[in-house]
This record gives sequence, C-alpha cells and structure tokens, in this order.
Amino acid sequence: MTQEWLQELGAEVLLSNTYHLYLRPGSDLIERSGGLHQFMSWNGAILTDSGGYQVFSHRELARISEEGVKFRSHLDGSAHFITPELSVQIQEQLGADIIMAFDECTPYPVTRAQARESMLRSMRWAQRSHSAHTHQGQALFGIMQGSIYPDLRRESLGRLNEIGFEGLALGGFSVGEPRDLMFEILDQLSDELPHHQPRYLMGVGTPLDLLQAVELGMDMFDCVLPTRNARNGMLFTSCGQLRIKNSRYRDDERPVDSDCDCFVCARYSRSYLRHLFVSHEILSSVLNTFHNLHFYLELMRNVRKTIELGTLDSFARDFREQYSSGC
Amino acid sequence: MTQEWLQELGAEVLLSNTYHLYLRPGSDLIERSGGLHQFMSWNGAILTDSGGYQVFSHRELARISEEGVKFRSHLDGSAHFITPELSVQIQEQLGADIIMAFDECTPYPVTRAQARESMLRSMRWAQRSHSAHTHQGQALFGIMQGSIYPDLRRESLGRLNEIGFEGLALGGFSVGEPRDLMFEILDQLSDELPHHQPRYLMGVGTPLDLLQAVELGMDMFDCVLPTRNARNGMLFTSCGQLRIKNSRYRDDERPVDSDCDCFVCARYSRSYLRHLFVSHEILSSVLNTFHNLHFYLELMRNVRKTIELGTLDSFARDFREQYSSGC
Repeated sequence: MTQEWLQELGAEVLLSNTYHLYLRPGSDLIERSGGLHQFMSWNGAILTDSGGYQVFSHRELARISEEGVKFRSHLDGSAHFITPELSVQIQEQLGADIIMAFDECTPYPVTRAQARESMLRSMRWAQRSHSAHTHQGQALFGIMQGSIYPDLRRESLGRLNEIGFEGLALGGFSVGEPRDLMFEILDQLSDELPHHQPRYLMGVGTPLDLLQAVELGMDMFDCVLPTRNARNGMLFTSCGQLRIKNSRYRDDERPVDSDCDCFVCARYSRSYLRHLFVSHEILSSVLNTFHNLHFYLELMRNVRKTIELGTLDSFARDFREQYSSGC
Repeated sequence: MTQEWLQELGAEVLLSNTYHLYLRPGSDLIERSGGLHQFMSWNGAILTDSGGYQVFSHRELARISEEGVKFRSHLDGSAHFITPELSVQIQEQLGADIIMAFDECTPYPVTRAQARESMLRSMRWAQRSHSAHTHQGQALFGIMQGSIYPDLRRESLGRLNEIGFEGLALGGFSVGEPRDLMFEILDQLSDELPHHQPRYLMGVGTPLDLLQAVELGMDMFDCVLPTRNARNGMLFTSCGQLRIKNSRYRDDERPVDSDCDCFVCARYSRSYLRHLFVSHEILSSVLNTFHNLHFYLELMRNVRKTIELGTLDSFARDFREQYSSGC
C-alpha cells in the first residue's frame, strides 16, 4: 500500500506503531528527519499507539513493574525499559497528531482482582503520561481498561475524566473475550462516555463489528483485518467474506465484488486474482490490500453519511442482510 | 507492479513465461478466459517465450531427445513432455502478439561440437515450430544459437532465414560467457543480420549492456534485472547502482535519483526506502520496482529519441560518464 493509494482511497488517518518505530529505524532518526509525516511523506493525520500493546504481545519477553516495562527486542534481543514518560517522549519525537497514554492491555481471561490491579496501574500510568506530555498540537488520548467488569470500566473512566484527556480510547477489548460480551459492556457504558470526545475502540474489528460498535456510539477504530486478511487471500465483499484461494474461483471471470467501484474490481477477475494468490505473487497482496481497504473505508463513509441523514438504521439493516447472503 | 502502473510507465510490451503459465494456471484455463490479454487485463502487446529456457534452467529435471524435452514440474514433480509443436500450441492458446520458436538455450561453456549439435537441433525445432504455427496475427520469431562460435552463429542465421520468421531473436547469450565476448560476436554479426526484422537480444542486461547492444544494432531486450534487483534493494540511478541497504543511506533525505521524475523519487527519501527494505516491507519491493522499471523505460525512450535525432553517440557518452560517476 503506497501513500499515493491511501490518498486515492480517501484515508484520513493512519496508525503507526511506536514500539516498532522505536526499535527500527529509531525515533531519534525519525525526529532528525523532521518527524513521521516528513519521514514517510504522509500529509494526512497520524495516530501512534503507546507501544504497550506490542510490548505485552511478546509477554514472555516483558517484565512489568510500577515504574514501567522491561522487555527484550523481538528483533535482536536487546534490553529496553519503557515507561509512560518514555512512551510519550517517543511519540513526541515521532510527531503524530494523536498519541496514546501508556497502558497495559489487560489480557483475557483475568480475575476481577487482577483486572483491577492492572487497571489501577494503567490509570497511574495515564496520569504520568499526561504529566509528561508537553508538545502542543498533539491530542493525547487516555485508554480505559477494566477487562469485562463494568464497574472497573466505570472506575477507569472516572479516573481518566479526572486527569482530562482529549479523547477516550477503549482498550483491552478484542483480546479473546466473547464478542457478545464486549458489545454488552459497550452497551452498558455507552451513555456514560463523555459526549465531547471521540471514542476510539481499539483493535476492532470485522465489518459487522464496526457497524454494531458505531450503533453503540463508537467513533474510531483500528484493526489489522483488512490488510492482514488481504495478504492471506481473504477478501471483504458486500455479500460477505471470500477466500480467493477456493477452487470455485478458478474460472470465475467476475470481479471480486460487483458492487465495488475500486480499480481492482473494475479491472481484474476472481480467476486472475486467484492465480496471483496461488502463485505467491506480491501483486496478490498489493491488489487484495487495495480492495479490502477500499471496502472498509467505503463502509465507514456510508456510515458517516447515513448518520448525518438519519438513515443509519436502514443502511445497517440492508448491509447486514446482504453481507450474510454469501458470495 | 500493477498493470495500471505499467501503463503509467509507458510500457508497450510485456513478456510472459510459457513454462510457468502452462503449469499454472494452465494454458487451457487462459484460453477459456479469452487469452492472456483478457486473463490479466493487459491491452498492450505481449511476448511469450517458448518455455525452453525455463525447462532447461531446471536441467536436472529435464531429458532432451530429438522429439522434445521430457521434464518434471518444479511445482509438483509431475512429468511433462514439451515439443516444438506443443510449445507453439500453448503460445497460440495464450494468444500473445509475439511468440518464440522452441529452442535449446545452449549452456556455457560448451565445446564447438556440442554447440553445433545443440544449434542444429534447435534449427530443426525452429522448422517444426514454424510448421506448427497456424494462428494469424501472432508474429513468430526464430532464435539464433551457436554459443560463442561466430561460424555456428552464421550457420544458424542462414537456416533461420531459409525458414522465414518475422523477427530474429539472439539466444544463448548472457549465460555466463564473458561480457566482452558477447559484444565481440554481436559486432562481427551485426552487418549480416536482416535489416527488415527486429533483432531481439534475449536475457540482456544492465543499462550499459543495453546501450552497447543498441549501438551494435539490437532492437529488443528482456531481462529480470530491473525487477529482481529492485526486490533485492539494488536501485538503478543516473549515477550508477545504489544498494539501498547500505548504512550510508540511513539518514539520507535525498531521493534515490535526483535526475529521476518517477513518483518514488518525487516523494520518498533514501532514508525511508532503506527503512522499508531493512524492515522487509512489501512496499519496499513495490516502490523499488516502480523506480527501476521507470529507469529502464526512460533510458530506452531516450535511446529511441536520440537515434531519431542522430545524437545517440553523444547521449551514450554522457550517460556512460554519469553512470560511472557513483552515487
């Protein structure tokens, strides 16, 4: 995916990983080159995560204390110690438009006591992140934790509101808990979330997840699904998911999605895209990624449009019906 | 590399490999879908090789006889027998605009006797390829062999002229022989090649090779260098080759080639491209490939233009001087 294509797709914000950029090429280098926008030549908005998620995703390499997290690089095994202050400093060096407080993404399943201990530490880290943040022009978001326990979520929310952030992220979801449970908690909390701030549901999700979360008041999302699944040959279409490797597409001269107006669907057949995937052509990843990102961005454009028109309900109903019809 | 980008780059002909397409997805499937142009959605010209080169490049899997070559698929080990007649039939199914006679690309080094035996068989196969070719609207090229022996090359040329092809390919070069030896032979043969036919030097080469070969009367080339080297981080520039992995480019905010007007050089720095390469990002291959193809196609556009203007000599002198100046 090139920056040129992201513009063509109408992407307005992209997410960059603090952990990965800190290790390689290094936040010092990016700062020297004028920040991440300049380094990667992206004039749109950028959001950076805090690095916490990646640090903990290599949990066997990480050791947590009140001060921060000691971890080893997944690249070369070198030792690092990341604190809320360092996370914010790195994010200031990168110069993203939206940055995140450093937190622990509480794993699932977890006892109530463990979830509270983890949440309270994340809230102390949220305070330290907030205090360490000095750059103007960067919106700092706090991240709510509390796992699947609504009262812990409320307690977390209260502490974040006291500190005072510019946006609210909901972390610790999409980590293995039942899908319905996440939506039940979002439903319970929805009315209590501040109305003057964007609500960012981290790590979610499928097209149906996004739609349901929007209906529960969520505004922002990030997810690897459209790009990772593209590389694995899983395409999103208006009539559901399509595994391009499937032999039924061998001679299928139709586009991936006849309702899609991206250049891939305008020009290439399922048969050709299947051939590229089966042959391990890089072009397979390239074209699939473009299509999937187009699908997601178009979905969210329609969601925003129908919210303004007051017709989200009927749009969502039609979308769900067609999406479950099968390709 | 997408077809959209090939058009943007001004590519007019692309080469497809008969061997690979025969094995996967199969020439029957491509014929059913309306031919290769339709299958891959490419409206420009297509040239297919005969399959011989790939069959012999897995030499341990191939056994040659007067009738043809028995080989095993590098994909699944399945047994196949390809003859001049089958090669032409497959190429007719694929429906390329320019197709090639089936030949043996004589390996190097080789004794004179072996080279003559191989060449004479290729000439008998050339006759059989010609007889098997029935489709209108496909130009069939003969392929000259004879290794590094000028008299064998002449004998091969004479036989091809007798058969009567629509273009002359020079095969069996760029197979490990000294570079100077190839040019010496091209120089000796140049005046004897038919003037009414395109001369296609197969498998060549570097930018300097192309220039020198053009000066010796060559018209057409094919080579993996611009794309394969791109994936390996080797970029072609007006001041020579550049290994983007080199640590000297770590902080280098200049474009790959300040004389280049491709979108990669207009937008991205060496520092960023180095980061993509070191991080094994697919985008590294994508951007490097675009740049290298742009460099090659621009070089050949300049060559054609200066031939028409009668200024090829001075263009070639300037190009060589700058190309050897180093980046």
